[in-house]
Amino acid sequence: MGKVASVAILGATGYTGAELVRLLHGHSAARIDHLSSERFAGKGIAAAFPHLRGTGEWVYRPLEVERVARCDIVFCALPHRASMEVVPRLLAQGQRVIDLSADFRIRDASIYQAWYGDVHSAPDWLPKAVYGLPELNRDSIRSAQLIANPGCYPTSVILALAPLLTHHAVALSPILVDSKSGVSGAGRSPTQESLFAEVADGFRPYKTGGHRHTPEMEQELGRLAGSELVIRFTPHLLPQSRGILSTCYVRPDQHRSDQAWFELFADFYKDEPFVTILPPGEEPATHHVRGSNQCRIMVRFDSRTGWLMVFATIDNLIKGASGQAIQNMNLMLGVTETTGLEAIPLFP
Amino acid sequence: MGKVASVAILGATGYTGAELVRLLHGHSAARIDHLSSERFAGKGIAAAFPHLRGTGEWVYRPLEVERVARCDIVFCALPHRASMEVVPRLLAQGQRVIDLSADFRIRDASIYQAWYGDVHSAPDWLPKAVYGLPELNRDSIRSAQLIANPGCYPTSVILALAPLLTHHAVALSPILVDSKSGVSGAGRSPTQESLFAEVADGFRPYKTGGHRHTPEMEQELGRLAGSELVIRFTPHLLPQSRGILSTCYVRPDQHRSDQAWFELFADFYKDEPFVTILPPGEEPATHHVRGSNQCRIMVRFDSRTGWLMVFATIDNLIKGASGQAIQNMNLMLGVTETTGLEAIPLFP
Amino acid sequence: MGKVASVAILGATGYTGAELVRLLHGHSAARIDHLSSERFAGKGIAAAFPHLRGTGEWVYRPLEVERVARCDIVFCALPHRASMEVVPRLLAQGQRVIDLSADFRIRDASIYQAWYGDVHSAPDWLPKAVYGLPELNRDSIRSAQLIANPGCYPTSVILALAPLLTHHAVALSPILVDSKSGVSGAGRSPTQESLFAEVADGFRPYKTGGHRHTPEMEQELGRLAGSELVIRFTPHLLPQSRGILSTCYVRPDQHRSDQAWFELFADFYKDEPFVTILPPGEEPATHHVRGSNQCRIMVRFDSRTGWLMVFATIDNLIKGASGQAIQNMNLMLGVTETTGLEAIPLFP
Amino acid sequence: MGKVASVAILGATGYTGAELVRLLHGHSAARIDHLSSERFAGKGIAAAFPHLRGTGEWVYRPLEVERVARCDIVFCALPHRASMEVVPRLLAQGQRVIDLSADFRIRDASIYQAWYGDVHSAPDWLPKAVYGLPELNRDSIRSAQLIANPGCYPTSVILALAPLLTHHAVALSPILVDSKSGVSGAGRSPTQESLFAEVADGFRPYKTGGHRHTPEMEQELGRLAGSELVIRFTPHLLPQSRGILSTCYVRPDQHRSDQAWFELFADFYKDEPFVTILPPGEEPATHHVRGSNQCRIMVRFDSRTGWLMVFATIDNLIKGASGQAIQNMNLMLGVTETTGLEAIPLFP
Repeated sequence: MGKVASVAILGATGYTGAELVRLLHGHSAARIDHLSSERFAGKGIAAAFPHLRGTGEWVYRPLEVERVARCDIVFCALPHRASMEVVPRLLAQGQRVIDLSADFRIRDASIYQAWYGDVHSAPDWLPKAVYGLPELNRDSIRSAQLIANPGCYPTSVILALAPLLTHHAVALSPILVDSKSGVSGAGRSPTQESLFAEVADGFRPYKTGGHRHTPEMEQELGRLAGSELVIRFTPHLLPQSRGILSTCYVRPDQHRSDQAWFELFADFYKDEPFVTILPPGEEPATHHVRGSNQCRIMVRFDSRTGWLMVFATIDNLIKGASGQAIQNMNLMLGVTETTGLEAIPLFP
Repeated sequence: MGKVASVAILGATGYTGAELVRLLHGHSAARIDHLSSERFAGKGIAAAFPHLRGTGEWVYRPLEVERVARCDIVFCALPHRASMEVVPRLLAQGQRVIDLSADFRIRDASIYQAWYGDVHSAPDWLPKAVYGLPELNRDSIRSAQLIANPGCYPTSVILALAPLLTHHAVALSPILVDSKSGVSGAGRSPTQESLFAEVADGFRPYKTGGHRHTPEMEQELGRLAGSELVIRFTPHLLPQSRGILSTCYVRPDQHRSDQAWFELFADFYKDEPFVTILPPGEEPATHHVRGSNQCRIMVRFDSRTGWLMVFATIDNLIKGASGQAIQNMNLMLGVTETTGLEAIPLFP
Repeated sequence: MGKVASVAILGATGYTGAELVRLLHGHSAARIDHLSSERFAGKGIAAAFPHLRGTGEWVYRPLEVERVARCDIVFCALPHRASMEVVPRLLAQGQRVIDLSADFRIRDASIYQAWYGDVHSAPDWLPKAVYGLPELNRDSIRSAQLIANPGCYPTSVILALAPLLTHHAVALSPILVDSKSGVSGAGRSPTQESLFAEVADGFRPYKTGGHRHTPEMEQELGRLAGSELVIRFTPHLLPQSRGILSTCYVRPDQHRSDQAWFELFADFYKDEPFVTILPPGEEPATHHVRGSNQCRIMVRFDSRTGWLMVFATIDNLIKGASGQAIQNMNLMLGVTETTGLEAIPLFP
Repeated sequence: MGKVASVAILGATGYTGAELVRLLHGHSAARIDHLSSERFAGKGIAAAFPHLRGTGEWVYRPLEVERVARCDIVFCALPHRASMEVVPRLLAQGQRVIDLSADFRIRDASIYQAWYGDVHSAPDWLPKAVYGLPELNRDSIRSAQLIANPGCYPTSVILALAPLLTHHAVALSPILVDSKSGVSGAGRSPTQESLFAEVADGFRPYKTGGHRHTPEMEQELGRLAGSELVIRFTPHLLPQSRGILSTCYVRPDQHRSDQAWFELFADFYKDEPFVTILPPGEEPATHHVRGSNQCRIMVRFDSRTGWLMVFATIDNLIKGASGQAIQNMNLMLGVTETTGLEAIPLFP
């Protein structure tokens, strides 16, 4: 075995931070050397996350960019806006950064501003950031200094539609995406809307006027299609902690059987360790990927109405966030891509 | 107060049967005189439904069509196929029947056969049945002998799209409906798929190849539109007991503001006691109608993509089944339509 | 029908406040004339509680003690400590008050201070407050000026043990109570511990060092027993919104059959509209009383170990809070005790 | 690394069977060579468990005792009664068996008959079976031919009380255990009581007249205490899939501080890889051990009432079943005890 990389996690007190710790614990090619948090500074990991008691003797420290200078990889799990302030300083001292916020995902600063409402403070870095979806950008990821780790919804949607848009097998318009997510995607900050009694036994759409993950999907899928495109994306909140399922509706260019669509997808992802194409009729379920880095996809054509449907599911905290970040790290370190990500889904 | 009607419930051991009992208990214009069940024959209601202990001294009896002859209204909560055998015998002895199965909802016996796989054994009754959606068919319901009580999904979808199709305000194609339902819609028969451990903390589409509620929506909405139409309908299973939310996507005929769409809907339903149009941005939630006969609808236009979205939510066991049946009964009896259905949603 | 009473609800933005509104809406003998909230002042009820949209045109107003002077009954749903500041001012202007906080439940100010950590600011009112458990104190409630509405846990525990202690049928020691509650009992203020992702699919004890509801149980049960007693009370948090189940363990004075215990309980509560004694072996369930003002109790003797167990369940927001408050109001107004509380449990 | 053991799983279609497959997949010292099922014979593992798709090419075969003759370890996950028919035949051909049913846990055939209602068909094997709780019986497990894998409730209770009874630190009477379990403990066979809509958002006790896990606790704890003892054990059903929490009440022999109790427990389990003693006040939670082989215990003394409480939590499918079986296998194979069981809890 080669050298073990040293990593830092900035802002390690949310759910994605906790998942990074969990996945890195026992990772054979990396070890956590720094966990930052202002609120928990001086306390052990179990103070923030009782379930991680016993995993390591890590103690949170306040964020100091200089202290992480000797780390091989820095995971930045800070909120957006905070990230764009800190990340350039890390990059300036030569570090390789995997940023889990939205701040470096949108290449066009004006689009960022239009959807996020803030002027981007580090626009020069936007074109240099690599969008960290290994299934599409594996080679660039290996040598990247800055990875923009994809959003949870976009991961499910881009993986669902990439084969179709790459092969120009569907019309660019309309593209409709009806997504459903567990509530852990909203983070760990206490809000009334995320209380158990407000979420349990209920379901609702939200941000129906427009969700910030839309431009990210449009950018990456447009790039694959070689043309600009717009996507109608409607997110909904599920009464469960983990899991995203995206139901995508597109218009195929020509009639193909379900089996032919299946094969187009299976071929596209044939070497991918984390993407499984399910046979038509075996509908994916969020709890069948829970706890794993898997994405499961089923494609099905409805000849009666002419719609092609693609269903894709991931664990939003793993393939939709921290697992994907580890996958990116593995590529950057040149180790086997699946290292530390071998866990089978936990069901029930 | 007038005469109190005598009612019978056939097949009163599923969730819709229990809800009929609950809603009729204390109904000022009706009283239950007969509950049928083979399995629970001779036992009290609490044997099947512990939560109904104390509501009445009803004892289940085996189904005998003749015994219900003196009832003013018969609710038939038998499974489809069983219903089409029993209902004609009830009708033949002159009774008024509200059938909660799918057997009399589809006017065209060949379409029934195509979607349900069975030859209809009472096709003569199909054109005589009134589709029991009071918001659309109030007058016919009052004098009907046979009510086909709408399906749960169709109730949400037809109410969502009726204003648009009645006003010819949207294109007839495409119409996309992405629906999500709680698991009580699957009934109370034990199956592996409905076990707690298989449903909890998970979400999945099902019957993606085609769901039997599709032709019901197409028939009723086509009738409003004055033209045949097809709907792509995709149901999903939520990890919750009650509630349906349908997200409908259509193409408007012309640009209108969100406010104008709101007003079109508000005006269409202005006299309806059970339909509420929410202002744009106040997204409906299944648990905000739980336990009530309400339907809540929000309409919103996305000018960026040109899609008009309609979100509709109901409690699938009430407005989607038993509450609607009571509403129909009230109309048939000539009593105030809201009698026995005044309950406010139970939240949290 | 007699005069309709005018009522005010102070602090009507938590779950108990919302339940008071729901239960009073349509109450034939009372109408809400005042809803107070600082945060929602000037807004309608639906701003705080979307599920109550359509129930009434009430608008929140800032709390002003003088403004409620003409109300017949004031429900005080303020947090403890706030309550003991406001309630005496209401009483001083002659009003009848039902206080849902803990501030007037403990008759001994020093015990209050020991468990709640605060010096009581209105100790003179403590002996005048009537503990609002109608099954035990019906007559005093009728004429009371100040009702201390019982806590949720104590309601379940006192009803479970009252027959035994009244009849001196069990030893005063040990008394062990292992209780489990849904999370709505923790209120609607956003805290990390009450987030969906922290509560769902999990279970834990809490406040194992001592919970403030303990002295309330000891006081009321001690009064029935005619002797001081101590109770070991251990609360646990359930992954559900509503419902309390208390499992009580006591030592009987003599051997009796399960049937004899059942009869002792059934006789004790024979005239009670809201207490049901279940036959031995028909275990109560929280969701079989959900949405109702019912308390269900099962008593069972284990001859092998000599323990007598009493299981009691209520909906913590109804019989454990707002429903009980309405029951108290009905008694104070001299109307039928069950008015507005007739709802059958909502299941599933 | 040494030889890789060959293992068989009989009856691999329930939740414990699926967990055995999940845990053995990637186990460095064992590989699955045989999966038996009548119902799924000829089908792959994903037919029974979609979440295990991709884990291996295993195909179910009908159970034939002879076919597993060359396996080093046979896990028997058949229901009780079936197990006692099959296991002796396996033992007779010299195999080492880990039986996950209850059939070989009770050493006294008359006690088995009293609680399980069946005459034991292989009583000669009862005294030879080793009760597979490694924390207590590690040495005997290493050389055992037949392991009776402990029940889920008994695992939590015996680990909770073993330090106290071993040290004679509490009275032998009373011992009260109030346990709560997720519904996966009821297995995967479809029953009405285990349906989502019957379990969700609700809580109830069950088998209050006596649960079969009682004699197992009494036997093992009595052995530690050197004296017969009886336990009042009351199980309850939680609205969650996984997790057991047992709340145990005992009377200490002498006053000790919480810290002293903590140290007694910490010392007792100081070398145990899977048992964690939490400091007083840090209450354990079922979802903080979910997905892991951990047992977490907190002990706390209530000086006011004289009760000592021990709270213990496990994942019922892992430390309470399949993980413990793997732990036993590791001991039998002489490999590191934690092999394949290193997973950290999955939260949220």
